[in-house]
Amino acid sequence: MRLRNKPWAMEYLQSHPEYVITNPDDIQSWKQHFGTDHPLHVEVGTGKGKFLKDMSEKYPNINFIGVEKYESVLVSGVEKAVESKPTNLAFIHADVNNLFDYFKENEIDQLYINFTDPWPKARHEKRRLTYKGFLSKYKKVLKNNGEIHFKTDNQGLFEYSIESMSSFGMILKNVSLDLHKSSWDDNVMTEYEEKFSKKNYRIYRLEAQFEKPSST
Amino acid sequence: MRLRNKPWAMEYLQSHPEYVITNPDDIQSWKQHFGTDHPLHVEVGTGKGKFLKDMSEKYPNINFIGVEKYESVLVSGVEKAVESKPTNLAFIHADVNNLFDYFKENEIDQLYINFTDPWPKARHEKRRLTYKGFLSKYKKVLKNNGEIHFKTDNQGLFEYSIESMSSFGMILKNVSLDLHKSSWDDNVMTEYEEKFSKKNYRIYRLEAQFEKPSST
Ligand SMILES: C[S@@+](CC[C@H](N)C(=O)[O-])C[C@H]1O[C@@H](n2cnc3c(N)ncnc32)[C@H](O)[C@@H]1O
Ligand SMILES: C[S@@+](CC[C@H](N)C(=O)[O-])C[C@H]1O[C@@H](n2cnc3c(N)ncnc32)[C@H](O)[C@@H]1O
Repeated sequence: MRLRNKPWAMEYLQSHPEYVITNPDDIQSWKQHFGTDHPLHVEVGTGKGKFLKDMSEKYPNINFIGVEKYESVLVSGVEKAVESKPTNLAFIHADVNNLFDYFKENEIDQLYINFTDPWPKARHEKRRLTYKGFLSKYKKVLKNNGEIHFKTDNQGLFEYSIESMSSFGMILKNVSLDLHKSSWDDNVMTEYEEKFSKKNYRIYRLEAQFEKPSST
Repeated sequence: MRLRNKPWAMEYLQSHPEYVITNPDDIQSWKQHFGTDHPLHVEVGTGKGKFLKDMSEKYPNINFIGVEKYESVLVSGVEKAVESKPTNLAFIHADVNNLFDYFKENEIDQLYINFTDPWPKARHEKRRLTYKGFLSKYKKVLKNNGEIHFKTDNQGLFEYSIESMSSFGMILKNVSLDLHKSSWDDNVMTEYEEKFSKKNYRIYRLEAQFEKPSST
C-alpha cells in the first residue's frame, strides 16, 4: 500500500491511549484495559478498522483488537472509535511480528486475517501473514482450539495459504471458494472486501485450527 | 451417471483379461501382470479411460491402472486399450471400496481422483471419493510419500475435499483454483475435464500427501 505521509498521525494515535496502544509497556493486561474478561478476537493487518468496528457493534460481549503497523492507516480506525466510543474495541500500532509483546500464550480466542497483502514474489514469501513464521506465532498466542478466520480476494494468496496451513498441520474448515455466492450469512465485510466485491471479484474464505477439537 | 444398459459389456470385459481384471482372484501380482515393476499409478473412478490412455502414452515407464465400477462405462476404456495395445495400462472392474482386494499395503506410488461424483447431499457424504473412509483406504495402499492428485470442476466437492483431507492430517500442495488459467503446463485432460472446460467452468486441482517427505 502506497501511503500519503501523515506526520500528525503518530501524534493523534498517542493522544488516544484509550483506543490505541503505541508502546508495549502501556499494556499490562487486556482484562484491565477493557474492564471485562470477555473473549479476545484479534485482527492482524487491520487497515482502517471498518471490520472491527462493525464486529464490535455486532458482538458486544467480545473484545476486539486490531494490529496495524502503519499509523497513517490506523488513524482511520482510531478516529472511528473516538467517534462511536465502543468499550470493546482497541488497536495496537505494531508489526504483527511483535505479537508476543502484546499477548501472552493462549490468550487469544480467535484471529482474523483479512485481505492481507499477497506479496506474490517468491522471495517475499516471509512477509505473507500466512507464512509459517507467522503461523507459529499465532499458534502460541491462540488458545488451543482457537480459530483463524481468513478472507481474501487473491487467488494466489489463498492457494498459498491452504498449502502453508495444511503443511503446518492445521485443520481447514468452512472453506468457501466464492463467499458472496455461498450460503454463509454471517459475513461482516471489510474495507477491501467491499471494494473488491463491487468489482465482482470472487472472495475466498476459510477457517483454520491448530488442534483438533477434543470432541471429535 | 445414468447409464444405458449394455448387457454385452460384462461379456466383453471378461473376454479381455489382458486389459481388465473382473475378479480379484485373477490378479496375483501387478509386476507379473505388466511384466515390469515400474511405479504403479492408479485412477479411482476412471470412467471411459481417456485420461489413463493418454497418461500411459505420455509416461511409458509408469504402469497405470483404472478402477471403475460400471462395466457399461469401463468398456470404453478397455476398447481403447484393445485398439492401441499399450503394455502399461490395465483396468479393474470393481468398487473403490474393494481396493484391498487388488492392492497390497504400500503398493501404489500415486493415485488420481478426477471429476468424481460430487454427491452434494450431506447424507451421501460417505460416497464421495474424498470421504475419510476412502482416504484411510488410500493411505494403506499408497507408499509413504505417495501422492493423491485430485481434479474437479465442482466447487462444493473441492471445498469439501480440502476440509476432509486437512482434517485427516494430509498436506496439500500445488493447489490451483483455476487450473486452465494457471502456469501448470503438465496437465493431461480427462473426458469430463474436456467437457467442462469447453463450457468455461473453472477446474480445481490439488495434490495431497499423508506424510511429510522426510527431506523437509
Ligand atoms: C490490504 S490491507 C487490508 C486491510 C483490512 N484488513 C481490510 O480487509 O480491509 C492490509 C493491511 O495489513 C497491514 N499489514 C501487513 N503486514 C503487516 C504486518 N506485518 N504488521 C502489521 N500490519 C501489517 C498493512 O499495513 C495494511 O494496512
Ligand atoms: C463423473 S465420472 C468421471 C470419469 C473420469 N474420471 C473423468 O474425469 O472423465 C466418475 C466415475 O467414477 C465412477 N465411480 C464413482 N464412485 C465409484 C466407486 N465407489 N467405485 C468405482 N467407481 C466409482 C463412476 O462410475 C464414474 O464412471
